Amino acid sequence: MFSSVSIPAQSPDVLALAADVQAALSHVERVFERALDSDLPPVQRLVSHLESYRGKMLRPALVVLTGLAASSERDRARVIGSESPHVVVAAVCEMIHMATLVHDDVLDEADIRRKGATVNRLHGNEAAVILGDYLFSSAYRLCSTLDSQTAAMLIGQTGMTLCAGELLQLHHRENFSIDEETYFEIVERKTGSLIAVACKLGAMLARSEPIGQTQGGTPDHGLPQRMHDVGLRLGVAFQIQDDLLDLTGNQAVVGKPLRKDLQLGKLTLPVIHHLASATPARRAATLHLLEDFSPQSTGSRGLLEALESTGSIEHARAAAQRLVDDAKGLLAELSDSPAKAMLLLMADQVVTRTS
Amino acid sequence: MFSSVSIPAQSPDVLALAADVQAALSHVERVFERALDSDLPPVQRLVSHLESYRGKMLRPALVVLTGLAASSERDRARVIGSESPHVVVAAVCEMIHMATLVHDDVLDEADIRRKGATVNRLHGNEAAVILGDYLFSSAYRLCSTLDSQTAAMLIGQTGMTLCAGELLQLHHRENFSIDEETYFEIVERKTGSLIAVACKLGAMLARSEPIGQTQGGTPDHGLPQRMHDVGLRLGVAFQIQDDLLDLTGNQAVVGKPLRKDLQLGKLTLPVIHHLASATPARRAATLHLLEDFSPQSTGSRGLLEALESTGSIEHARAAAQRLVDDAKGLLAELSDSPAKAMLLLMADQVVTRTS
Repeated sequence: MFSSVSIPAQSPDVLALAADVQAALSHVERVFERALDSDLPPVQRLVSHLESYRGKMLRPALVVLTGLAASSERDRARVIGSESPHVVVAAVCEMIHMATLVHDDVLDEADIRRKGATVNRLHGNEAAVILGDYLFSSAYRLCSTLDSQTAAMLIGQTGMTLCAGELLQLHHRENFSIDEETYFEIVERKTGSLIAVACKLGAMLARSEPIGQTQGGTPDHGLPQRMHDVGLRLGVAFQIQDDLLDLTGNQAVVGKPLRKDLQLGKLTLPVIHHLASATPARRAATLHLLEDFSPQSTGSRGLLEALESTGSIEHARAAAQRLVDDAKGLLAELSDSPAKAMLLLMADQVVTRTS
Repeated sequence: MFSSVSIPAQSPDVLALAADVQAALSHVERVFERALDSDLPPVQRLVSHLESYRGKMLRPALVVLTGLAASSERDRARVIGSESPHVVVAAVCEMIHMATLVHDDVLDEADIRRKGATVNRLHGNEAAVILGDYLFSSAYRLCSTLDSQTAAMLIGQTGMTLCAGELLQLHHRENFSIDEETYFEIVERKTGSLIAVACKLGAMLARSEPIGQTQGGTPDHGLPQRMHDVGLRLGVAFQIQDDLLDLTGNQAVVGKPLRKDLQLGKLTLPVIHHLASATPARRAATLHLLEDFSPQSTGSRGLLEALESTGSIEHARAAAQRLVDDAKGLLAELSDSPAKAMLLLMADQVVTRTS
């Protein structure tokens, strides 16, 4: 039911691991569905609609993979067990992610998500707002079944952080002078925080002795924080790639209408770079394009040419690549394992994906 | 800053207790504010707006009072301590309540709440939706600071229950054949569940030896569930009284526009009773009134006369009074204390209040 993470195969070890990860993600799916079950048929019907919202399962996959990478070999079976703490946390992270998607679609008046109609389109804004709240509540209830106060606190804190990021983004809507520092502050909170906590909890919930090892084989107590830093970088790179696909992607492949961000006055990294580095005349022309920008207008092509003229597409690509390289540098410190190899492959995918 | 619960004074004991409860509610206010603090000025500005949303503090008062009623005398100081579990849970309950108010106002397109402009009115729907999510997340984070997995689970479960109640209500919008059973199912979940859990947690978090005593002085382990049942009854009675005030109240006293529910197609108990018990001709006339009902129209007076003609206002009043009497019957089983006396007074206030 979940569309799986696409996992490039390299070695037989990685292939075997891929099957384990798929099994764990099926467990995540079951835990996810059971947590949302309602005795009220109208509620259950809405919940069922969420199946079509399921996407890459990036966050669950990261919880499981960092968990495997941080575990000793004999503890790895535990990580992918049907109701393991990793499976529960993975479902929690996906549920919070989905809650934000459902609410985002209300705010953006989006009709299409993952090639299907959105909840707000089919059932109205009211149902979508309350369904999002139901998802948030369910995520926190599910999290409280874990015997980890720290996990619950981190998840609650992350929920706050990502909302704060969204509020900051909202505050800067239509702000055509927004700088890159502010962009990164928004994106680290809005997108990076949840991916970071997925990686951190994956490492934290691994068996504590040893909680991951350095290459030298000594226990590595700094691992959860380092995995947090990996997740933060991958999350921000993921968002930049989303921004790039929104500008340069193929709508049929991406699965949702493009250039909606600009229409809503949300400036993305290429546009911010362009406005800061263009000549005054060029800048004025682009600002004119952005006023009343509509994805259907001929402005889209003009905008892309403008962005290319200042190397702004390339600038954003390079920024995302640097973040991925940083993340891979941190991952390299892990002791070798198939999970480490797969994390490195996934890091590359963040910037090579086309959907 | 919080407007306090209005506490009728009867005995000197109850007066002394009132001061303690006020002190505890001030602690709740501080915990509440600190939990929402943000380093981002645009977020902090929105959070500050919430001050004007604060109302009766019914849920916090119930947490504190059931906590006091369930504690032995020497443990009572602990309940009202500045960061006691009761104070934290009280802030959590109020925060979840406020999250639902902020989202309700978006859904109802409300401009006025507690005599002031709503968040959606001042800052737009987007900000209001995300601010509600921020409140939910903050409530759960705050809850995770308690050393009680059970409390966290109950709070998460209650969040789900009240969203399910709202979704069920939404499903029955414009359903002019809705029966009383369905009405109670909606209201128990939507309004009753959070008030019930406030009372249950108040009793549960009281020191466990003895966790409340029966009149005979033996430990009373069923107390949390019994306090839950008290809260559920008071919560439903509270909602019925809200429904009645919406129909018969004075807008200047109530502090928000009246008869909005009917305009939105949400049927309340008096209307449901009326439609079920009126003659076919009367029913047809009322349905005609309810179609395109507007609070400003002359329909309001006609509707009230129709409801009186079938005794439907009195029917709803009696239903609320029965629930309050039931709750008082359960409270009577508590050993005597000023807190018990005040809970009994508050139970009466649920149906005598005019705002």
